[in-house]
Amino acid sequence: MTTGPSTSSGPSADRGVIDLLGLLAYAELGSFFRLAADAGLAPSLRSQGRLAAIAATEQVHYQAIRDRLVELGADPEEAMAPFVEPLDAWHERTRPKTWLESLVKTYVGDGIAGDFYCKVAELADDGTRAVVESATAETGRAEFIAETVREAVEKDPALSGRLSLWARRLVGEALSQAQSVAVSRPELAALLASGTGDGAEEGTAALGHLAEVSRMFAALTARHSARLEAMGLTA
Amino acid sequence: MTTGPSTSSGPSADRGVIDLLGLLAYAELGSFFRLAADAGLAPSLRSQGRLAAIAATEQVHYQAIRDRLVELGADPEEAMAPFVEPLDAWHERTRPKTWLESLVKTYVGDGIAGDFYCKVAELADDGTRAVVESATAETGRAEFIAETVREAVEKDPALSGRLSLWARRLVGEALSQAQSVAVSRPELAALLASGTGDGAEEGTAALGHLAEVSRMFAALTARHSARLEAMGLTA
Repeated sequence: MTTGPSTSSGPSADRGVIDLLGLLAYAELGSFFRLAADAGLAPSLRSQGRLAAIAATEQVHYQAIRDRLVELGADPEEAMAPFVEPLDAWHERTRPKTWLESLVKTYVGDGIAGDFYCKVAELADDGTRAVVESATAETGRAEFIAETVREAVEKDPALSGRLSLWARRLVGEALSQAQSVAVSRPELAALLASGTGDGAEEGTAALGHLAEVSRMFAALTARHSARLEAMGLTA
Repeated sequence: MTTGPSTSSGPSADRGVIDLLGLLAYAELGSFFRLAADAGLAPSLRSQGRLAAIAATEQVHYQAIRDRLVELGADPEEAMAPFVEPLDAWHERTRPKTWLESLVKTYVGDGIAGDFYCKVAELADDGTRAVVESATAETGRAEFIAETVREAVEKDPALSGRLSLWARRLVGEALSQAQSVAVSRPELAALLASGTGDGAEEGTAALGHLAEVSRMFAALTARHSARLEAMGLTA
């Protein structure tokens, strides 16, 4: 409940929180590599440079979460491992074909990550919360992306429908991957569903958790509509 | 001649210095994207993370040089433009097929860039020198790369010959691209060859510059041998 920095650390962190941090760490690392790989889509050297800056920010977040996992006594690569396949699968199924698709993907993906960061901030210790808050502090890049997409849609209104559809696909594929994660990581599902780290009924209640995670994810993606509007798109 | 930070800036910078900064800016940006694209070669999640950190450092350097170009009154993308094709061609001709090849390429490429940074520091104004010096200050990553390659070569001595050959190819292709840059950028060639920004005899003396640039490049790459030794390879 305190807002100042805390010294709490050590291997006492809840397994679910470690899972959540592992998920976010790999989400940032994966986004870093995918964004960089999309560089060829950028329409100019200037845009390539901006894309590099966005990607580099993801690397900084990755590093901060990884460092926090180490501080918490967790093996960071072990914590990330369960999320490599589902996140890679998401990227694989949502390969942008244009620069604008790449921007929309970054904006949507960052938004979902931001929602998960909020969840971590809600559930974790003060030290972890501080890390998470600094990772979500900068908003300049999100504004740059939203503005670029909005301008493009204003110039060519036909883009709106196509990009809106693309955004729906991004969320749909994310939901599908989240379901599979919920099945394989009941502790994480319990954490996300209940808002507590109490995993006592995991296993037997896995299907219940699954439904709850779907609801939680639906709530998270409700904020998705606001993000689409910011880009001039429709949900 | 002063060592402290200077306020000198403005559009008075020599065209050759602008060229050199444009070359370095795109070298950093290009390396950033290529390194990130090589992520799939990394043997582990941990190595991928380290590769991301190395790439992110290149982005920071790119940003610092780009900012300096703006301060000097230059259009940074215009300054980079002449070097996009030769640097892209170099990357295209030297695509690493293994993780170790990627590391050797990074080490060799960084080394050559470092030599060019020294050249800039020698020739440019104090403000630019400060930017360049901060870009070349951190050596930790270079040590990590050299150590990793050295350990791999110690474990499997057969690698030494293959990687030494690879390093020679990297430098050979760089030299070939440098020659074409020297032809198309006589002011830059003059700057590098003479150590002054005086481009009075450019054009008529282009072939002379070309030879001088080759010699300069040979001198630069003499340091290359030391770098190879640091990795347990031979020149």
